[in-house]
Amino acid sequence: MTNLQLNTEGKLKHFLTIEGLSKEILTEILDTAESFSELSKQQVKKVPLLRGKTIVNLFFENSTRTRTTFELAATRLSADSLSMNIATSATSKGESLLDTIHNLEAMHVDMFVVRHAISGAGHFIAQNTAAHISVINAGDGQHAHPTQAMLDMFTIRQHKHSFDQLKVAIIGDILHSRVARSQIQALNTLGTQEVRVIAPKTLLPSQVESMGVTAYNSIEKGLKDVDVIIMLRLQKERMTSALLPSEREYFKCFGLTEERLKLAKPNAIVMHPGPINRGVEIESSIADGPQSVILQQVSNGISVRMAIMSITLQNNGEAA
Amino acid sequence: MTNLQLNTEGKLKHFLTIEGLSKEILTEILDTAESFSELSKQQVKKVPLLRGKTIVNLFFENSTRTRTTFELAATRLSADSLSMNIATSATSKGESLLDTIHNLEAMHVDMFVVRHAISGAGHFIAQNTAAHISVINAGDGQHAHPTQAMLDMFTIRQHKHSFDQLKVAIIGDILHSRVARSQIQALNTLGTQEVRVIAPKTLLPSQVESMGVTAYNSIEKGLKDVDVIIMLRLQKERMTSALLPSEREYFKCFGLTEERLKLAKPNAIVMHPGPINRGVEIESSIADGPQSVILQQVSNGISVRMAIMSITLQNNGEAA
Amino acid sequence: MTNLQLNTEGKLKHFLTIEGLSKEILTEILDTAESFSELSKQQVKKVPLLRGKTIVNLFFENSTRTRTTFELAATRLSADSLSMNIATSATSKGESLLDTIHNLEAMHVDMFVVRHAISGAGHFIAQNTAAHISVINAGDGQHAHPTQAMLDMFTIRQHKHSFDQLKVAIIGDILHSRVARSQIQALNTLGTQEVRVIAPKTLLPSQVESMGVTAYNSIEKGLKDVDVIIMLRLQKERMTSALLPSEREYFKCFGLTEERLKLAKPNAIVMHPGPINRGVEIESSIADGPQSVILQQVSNGISVRMAIMSITLQNNGEAA
Repeated sequence: MTNLQLNTEGKLKHFLTIEGLSKEILTEILDTAESFSELSKQQVKKVPLLRGKTIVNLFFENSTRTRTTFELAATRLSADSLSMNIATSATSKGESLLDTIHNLEAMHVDMFVVRHAISGAGHFIAQNTAAHISVINAGDGQHAHPTQAMLDMFTIRQHKHSFDQLKVAIIGDILHSRVARSQIQALNTLGTQEVRVIAPKTLLPSQVESMGVTAYNSIEKGLKDVDVIIMLRLQKERMTSALLPSEREYFKCFGLTEERLKLAKPNAIVMHPGPINRGVEIESSIADGPQSVILQQVSNGISVRMAIMSITLQNNGEAA
Repeated sequence: MTNLQLNTEGKLKHFLTIEGLSKEILTEILDTAESFSELSKQQVKKVPLLRGKTIVNLFFENSTRTRTTFELAATRLSADSLSMNIATSATSKGESLLDTIHNLEAMHVDMFVVRHAISGAGHFIAQNTAAHISVINAGDGQHAHPTQAMLDMFTIRQHKHSFDQLKVAIIGDILHSRVARSQIQALNTLGTQEVRVIAPKTLLPSQVESMGVTAYNSIEKGLKDVDVIIMLRLQKERMTSALLPSEREYFKCFGLTEERLKLAKPNAIVMHPGPINRGVEIESSIADGPQSVILQQVSNGISVRMAIMSITLQNNGEAA
Repeated sequence: MTNLQLNTEGKLKHFLTIEGLSKEILTEILDTAESFSELSKQQVKKVPLLRGKTIVNLFFENSTRTRTTFELAATRLSADSLSMNIATSATSKGESLLDTIHNLEAMHVDMFVVRHAISGAGHFIAQNTAAHISVINAGDGQHAHPTQAMLDMFTIRQHKHSFDQLKVAIIGDILHSRVARSQIQALNTLGTQEVRVIAPKTLLPSQVESMGVTAYNSIEKGLKDVDVIIMLRLQKERMTSALLPSEREYFKCFGLTEERLKLAKPNAIVMHPGPINRGVEIESSIADGPQSVILQQVSNGISVRMAIMSITLQNNGEAA
């Protein structure tokens, strides 16, 4: 089975999932992002790389933060962008989604950035759209959120330089998290020494070890000697279900406190995809403290998305 | 009575209706659109023609598709555009509409693109706005939708080259359709040999022949030997009224099926302004089939709108 | 106490309130706006002064008109702008506002334009944001609306040249008006001979004279021989409270009529921040009449906001 994401020369033309991508491709993204990262410190934070290109943000699921970083990334590459918030109504069925896509194609757009509540929505669009259009997955159901994973890898590399000596712990609702799934794949592809997941049993996938991780039900044991701590956001809308205890209970068992942080290596960094629920998954003083790199993740999100946008369009034979 | 749309030299400065425009003016629009059509195949799909101009999209009636093509047309001409969705609330009376217009005028904008549920809204604004501002009608009530008609003419010319040997059939709710009204005027101005309208009697205007068309109540008879078939979109919100039969009934009597399509010339093209109600006014296999030019209409919509925007602003003494 | 608005060299880096600003700083804004005012008459109404800068419009209170002028001002300075309408929901508490601000900071934005229902919101953001970011107050609670006041000063200077011989009357709900508060401060700083406020007792602050104005409860007496008449917008949502009489009653006592206008100097100008309630605070024929400069205020709003944006960013060591 060929990889839908790669062109005939094996280069990235869509960015849908970390799965199936080589260490070389992930490293190329990180290296390209590094050059854009320099740019953001300049007076004029723009390059004409994608001038005259049209990027369409198709957000079937609302997300001001992610959409804003994609819009800024497009703007700083001098592309024109168009944002459409499409409610996932009962009528937005498969067929009419395709009609929407084909209409936008006919308007000679160059890229779709897609966020959708259904896993595989990005793949479906990539399979059905014109050859010259690149598709970026900005989060699909519980499947993948690969641009978030790459900005996390960028942030880790910034602080820890290489992955092969690292112990990384991911804490929270692993079962439902598209962010965790993409992070685990990226960390393993980049050769991380040890990837740990820490969660109550009800929030771990069955046979989680097959993903290449070590599972812990105790945060105290899981945090021992790690270099990187990645907190997941607690989806409050799931709190009512039987799967999750109360917020207070959750914080008591799995919240990151100052005391627990001491179990990790002294120079461990603390990450979170945002927005933070202060006092639920993380103590406020840690989020704002010296080991937190949460706001650096936000900055890096723009450089990494600029890298992914420019690489995929270039490989699709379209960039100037 | 002078034509509000023309400047003192008889050149187009507003684009409100096809009525009263000469064959020369329509042909100039089609020729200009052709040059922009070439541009959309380039790597950089932009020209600096309207750099520094401000185009305001005043959409009192919502329409993502039409607004998107106008926004893209403005962007590709390097103009700045500003979109305002203004709900047609009870308070948006004549006077406050004028206050809105005068305030935007004072902000030194250059063009209004207006969609409104009331027939004549574009004319009203053109009559009351500053001399240097051009007004484009993007659909007003049941009156006119002239940019849609022009992109349809462009698509017909692309495939059939000239109008004087053509038989064109328009099928659907002619009575309430601003699209049909503008298409009929454009087809006749461009010298089309025969324009047919096909509809149940309840959906035809009285004395429809005075518009320069032949009326048919039977789709089988009306489609005989035509070169171009234009389907209208069925306005489902009217289905509840006594004027229209059920969707199934409508499709049975006036839907375009493979069988009926065979009655037209073998190389006849099939058009639809979109969005399509598959299985209601048109069989899905025809919409996606070799004779369908529906998506080409969408592409042409951008070139034609770029042509109309640049011609009117140029004739208004404002373009660079 | 140092002035939060000024950098270490005493130059404007935020624009939050007129209070504490010198006559020189206000005059610099007016002079800079004058050069931009010339620009708006050109074919290409753009300058590359803020190219590559990102301006975020944070509107916690909705205002299409003010937001539009800020967006146009940013566009004409070639900046990129991003508009966020943030409903002032119960959850948008102090802390989460800060998290929003810090996240946008991390995206390397250069300016916040803030409108908020709470007095001091702009100050709070300026105190808590990164040093290189400038904050512009686009209206905060009942506190200040300094860009409105400056466009009013610009309009007065355009017609009356200097302030030291002028009598200016402000009419309406002085007590609750952030516009009036900023106008009074600006008029006094610029050396206006006499500033009068005209309102029913219930709509005047206690000890209003300490603001440097003369108070009148009779519009007839207050208008006598003035050079400039500034009408405030009647906030209809306050009409239900005990503070205000009915609309008819209000117009009878404090509405600007043709007859009352004759009490002012013959060449007096009439101003209003818009949108106008015709027949409530002002007679329609005056709003559209020869002494009205209301639409000039709108035009000037863009030039003045361009001036404030470019001056603050330049003084923050960021402009190109």
